[in-house]
Amino acid sequence: MAITNSIKDFHPVVNDAFVATAQALTPELIETEVRPVRVVNIVPEGGDYAAVEAAPAFERSAPMGRDDRLCLDFGDHRVGYVTFTLTPVGSPADAPAYLRLKFGEIPYEIAADSSLYSGEISRAWIQEEVIHVDVLPAVVSLPRRYAFRYLELTVLDTSAKYKVVVSEVVCRGVSSADMAAVPPLRTDDPELVRLDRVALRTMHDCMQTVFEDGPKRDRRLWMGDLRLQALTNYATFRNNDLVKRCLYLFAGLTLNEGRVGACLFTEPLPRVDDTALFDFSLFFPCALWDYFEATSDRDTLTELAPTAYKQLELSLKDVDGRGLVADREGWWCFLDWGDGLNKQAGAHAVLIYALRRGVSIVRALGDEVRAAAYEGHVAALTRAALEHLWDEKLGFFVSGAERQVSWASQVWFVLAEVFDRAENAALLRCLMKQNPGVPMVTPYMYHHFIDALLRSGMEAEALAAMKSYWGGMLRDGADTFWELYDPKDRYASPYGSRLVNSFCHAWSGTPAYFIRTHFVK
Amino acid sequence: MAITNSIKDFHPVVNDAFVATAQALTPELIETEVRPVRVVNIVPEGGDYAAVEAAPAFERSAPMGRDDRLCLDFGDHRVGYVTFTLTPVGSPADAPAYLRLKFGEIPYEIAADSSLYSGEISRAWIQEEVIHVDVLPAVVSLPRRYAFRYLELTVLDTSAKYKVVVSEVVCRGVSSADMAAVPPLRTDDPELVRLDRVALRTMHDCMQTVFEDGPKRDRRLWMGDLRLQALTNYATFRNNDLVKRCLYLFAGLTLNEGRVGACLFTEPLPRVDDTALFDFSLFFPCALWDYFEATSDRDTLTELAPTAYKQLELSLKDVDGRGLVADREGWWCFLDWGDGLNKQAGAHAVLIYALRRGVSIVRALGDEVRAAAYEGHVAALTRAALEHLWDEKLGFFVSGAERQVSWASQVWFVLAEVFDRAENAALLRCLMKQNPGVPMVTPYMYHHFIDALLRSGMEAEALAAMKSYWGGMLRDGADTFWELYDPKDRYASPYGSRLVNSFCHAWSGTPAYFIRTHFVK
Repeated sequence: MAITNSIKDFHPVVNDAFVATAQALTPELIETEVRPVRVVNIVPEGGDYAAVEAAPAFERSAPMGRDDRLCLDFGDHRVGYVTFTLTPVGSPADAPAYLRLKFGEIPYEIAADSSLYSGEISRAWIQEEVIHVDVLPAVVSLPRRYAFRYLELTVLDTSAKYKVVVSEVVCRGVSSADMAAVPPLRTDDPELVRLDRVALRTMHDCMQTVFEDGPKRDRRLWMGDLRLQALTNYATFRNNDLVKRCLYLFAGLTLNEGRVGACLFTEPLPRVDDTALFDFSLFFPCALWDYFEATSDRDTLTELAPTAYKQLELSLKDVDGRGLVADREGWWCFLDWGDGLNKQAGAHAVLIYALRRGVSIVRALGDEVRAAAYEGHVAALTRAALEHLWDEKLGFFVSGAERQVSWASQVWFVLAEVFDRAENAALLRCLMKQNPGVPMVTPYMYHHFIDALLRSGMEAEALAAMKSYWGGMLRDGADTFWELYDPKDRYASPYGSRLVNSFCHAWSGTPAYFIRTHFVK
Repeated sequence: MAITNSIKDFHPVVNDAFVATAQALTPELIETEVRPVRVVNIVPEGGDYAAVEAAPAFERSAPMGRDDRLCLDFGDHRVGYVTFTLTPVGSPADAPAYLRLKFGEIPYEIAADSSLYSGEISRAWIQEEVIHVDVLPAVVSLPRRYAFRYLELTVLDTSAKYKVVVSEVVCRGVSSADMAAVPPLRTDDPELVRLDRVALRTMHDCMQTVFEDGPKRDRRLWMGDLRLQALTNYATFRNNDLVKRCLYLFAGLTLNEGRVGACLFTEPLPRVDDTALFDFSLFFPCALWDYFEATSDRDTLTELAPTAYKQLELSLKDVDGRGLVADREGWWCFLDWGDGLNKQAGAHAVLIYALRRGVSIVRALGDEVRAAAYEGHVAALTRAALEHLWDEKLGFFVSGAERQVSWASQVWFVLAEVFDRAENAALLRCLMKQNPGVPMVTPYMYHHFIDALLRSGMEAEALAAMKSYWGGMLRDGADTFWELYDPKDRYASPYGSRLVNSFCHAWSGTPAYFIRTHFVK
C-alpha cells in the first residue's frame, strides 16, 4: 500500500523486550544465483506491451555503443541484487561508460518513459538507475535490491573509441522462504497447479526479513497484509518464526495509547509508521489467534494477548450511541481500494470479526470474565448492525449516511457471522446475482470474498471465483500476483500511474492458501 | 584533450622494470576537508550564467521535497569526494529519497540541461548523478571523484509524507600537491599575485597520482601537457618524483616500435592509449632534459635516454627527400586546436627543438658521436626549413601544400632557434603586427608564444600578452585556468558543446612558471 495519512500528535509506544524478541528472530536470507534465460524485445501488444524473444539464450552482448539497448529476461519474477561485467572493446576506454538500467516486473515498466510519470506517490519507486563506470573492465555490483523479471541496459554513452560488452549478468536472489519446505501439491488440475505456483513465487519474493507487502513497493510490513501472508505461510513455507517476529514487531512498536500501527519500517531500525487504520489494528488479535491455531505456541499467545485486547478495547471506543462504529472522513479504515467506498459498515463488521477472535484468545487463556465481556460486545454490535445497517428491503447491508451498498460491506458481514451459514449463503448469492453498488477492486478484498464463500459452504462458487479472478491475472501474463487487478481495466492504478503499481504483492498470494486448505487436501 | 584517432596494428611495447619504478613512486594523496561556503542561485548574466549569493553560509538546508533545489558554492575549485547527510523530516520516510546531483566547475554546467547535449565526445563526462537513497537518515558517500566549485542538489522526489534536510556536506579534497611546499611569491603586482594563485590552484587540482590534464576530463596523463606541468612544478610544488614517475610510465608503456604514446591510462592498470602524436612523442626527450636540468638526477637521465633517442630517431624517419617533415592528413600532430591548422611547419620546428634537447642529453652523458649526428640533423632540418618553409616575401614560415601561414608555425620556428635572437624578435613583432592567417586558440599554444617572446628578449611583450590572455580568463570569472579560452568567444569548444570543456586544465597553469622564472625573481 502507499498511504498518505498521519495520525495527530504521534508518540510511539515502544516495548523494548518485544522488539528484542523480534530482532532475535531475524532470519538469514537464502541466496540463490539466477541468470537471465534469454534476450527479449519489449513490443506493443494488445494495448499493452509484451516481451518477445530475441535470442533463446544470453551469454554476452554484442559490443554496445551510444543508445544501444539490451533487454534480458530472467525467466520469472526475482528479488535480489544484480551484478554484471562490463568489458571495453576497441581502443582503451577513454571516457566513463554511462548506462541506464531499468528493472521491470512487467514489460510495461521497461517500455514506459519514466520522465512522463505524473502519479501521486513517489517517483522514487520507479526502478531505474543511471550510472557511470569510470574504470573498465569492471564488475558492476548494484547496491540496491530490485524486484523484476526484465532488466534493460541502455548504453547512454561510451566514446567514439570504444564500446562495451555486457556479460556475467547475475541476480543474487534473496528470500527467507525456502521453496523446498513447501509440501508438494497433489492435484491433476493444471490451473490449480499454476495458480499455486504463481502464488508461491509471490509469497517467496515477499518473504524477506519480514513479510513485505511487495518487494518493489512499499517493501515493508503492513498488518493487514501480514494476516493473509501468515495464513498462506502456514499452508506452504511454514516459516512460523517469521510470523512470530512480525507479531512481536507490531506489539513492540505501537502508536499512541498502544494502538497497533498500520505498518512498520525495519530499516535503519524497526519503527512504526504514523499511520493508523481501524481494521488493520484489529487484525492483530486475528493474526495472533491464527498464529496460535497454526503453532499452538502458548507462550507467544500469552505474552501478546494484552496487545490484542488493547486493539479491541481501543476500537470499542469508536462505537457511538447507537452501538455503531462511527463513520469518519478520510482514510481511517482500509477494507479495499476503490473510489468512494464508505467504510462504516465494513469497519463495524471487522470489529465483530476481531472480537470473535478475541473471544477465542481469552478462552484459550482461561479468562472467562473477559470472554463474557467480548461476547457481550459481539451481541450488542450484531444487534446494532441488524437494526441500523441491515436494509431488509434491499436485502443488503448499507454503510454511512448515504446508505451505500458495497461488496465489501456484505463480505465482511458474512465473515462477521452476523447471520447464520444459510443466510450468509443467500446474501452472497444475492450479491453475485444483483452486483449492486461499489465493486471489489483488489485481490486483498477478493480474498475475503473467497473466504466468505467458503465459510458459507459455497465451495464451487469460491473455486470458480478464484479461478476467474486470479486466473485472469495469469491469462494477462502475471508471473507473480499483482497488488491490483481489475479484469476490465488492466491499466487501473490507485496512484495515478500503473508504473508504480506493485506486480508482486503478497496480499494477492492467497490462492496457495485456499488451494491447500480447501480445494486440494 | 579528447582525441579519436587510433594507430593501426596497435601493439604496445612494455618495459616492466620502468613501470615498476613508476609504480613505486605513486604518491600518497593529501586529503583536505572542504565545506561549502555559501548558498547560491545560478542566474543568467551577460549571455552566460553567474552564481549569485542566496545565503552567506551553509549549515543545513530547509526541508526539501519534490523539485526543491539547493546550490552550494565551495568557494573555489575542488577535486574530491563528496559526502552529505540526508535526514527525513515529517513522517518516517515511506519511499526512497530520489536526488539529482550536478557538479559544475563553472555556473554554466549547473544551468545547462544535459539532456540536450549533442557534443561529439562522450556525454559520460558531464558530472551529473541521479541517486536513490533507500534508508533514511543516511550519510551518502558518493563513490566517484568530481571536479567542481558548485554542487546542485535537486530532490526529484521524497513522498507526500516526508521531506529531507541536507546537512554535513563535505568534500574530501585530494591532490598529491602540497600548497605549503610552494615558495612565497614576492611581488606587489596584484594581477601577478592573482594569476599565480589561480595557476597554482589549477596545477594543484590536476596533480593526482599522475599529472592529469584536467580532473574533470580526461583525467589522464598526456605527454604534451606533462611537459608544461613539469616545468611549472619545478618552479612551484617541486614534486619532482611525480614528474619522474610520469616519465617512467611513458618510457615503460610505449606504442609499436617503442614510440612514446600521446597519453596514458593509470586505471585499472597503467596502459598506453593507442594514440600517437608526432609532437607529443618528441616532447619526451624535451621533458627528460627539463627534468635533468631541474633535478640533476643523472641516473634517471641515463636510464631513460635510450627512450628519448628512440623518439628522435623514429621522427627522423618522417623526413622526406627535401629534408622536410612530410605533411599528413588527419590528427597526427597536435600543436593547437583550431580548424584547418596545417601541422607540417610546426612539426618540422618541433623536431628541431627536440633534437636540440637531444643534443643536450647526449652531451651530458658524454656521447659525442651521437651529439654530432643530432647536430647534423639540426643543421639539415634548419637548411630545409629555410629553403622550403621560409617565405622571404611574406616574411613568415609557411606550412603544407597550401603554404598556410599560422601563428603556431612562427612560434615553433622561433622556439626551434632557426634564426638568431634578433631575427626571432623581428619575426614575432611582424606576427603581432600583421596577425596573419590561423590564430592561436588554446592556452597551450599561448604558452609557447609567451615562451618564444621571452626567448627573444621581449619580456615586456610577454608580460603584456600573459596578462591580457590569462587575465581575460580571470575577468571572465575563472577560478582555475581553462582548457580553452578564446577571448572573443567564451562559448568556444572543440567538442561541439562547452558542457564538456575542462575548466581546470593544467596546460593552462604555466603563468605560475613564467611569473616565478621570469617576472618575479
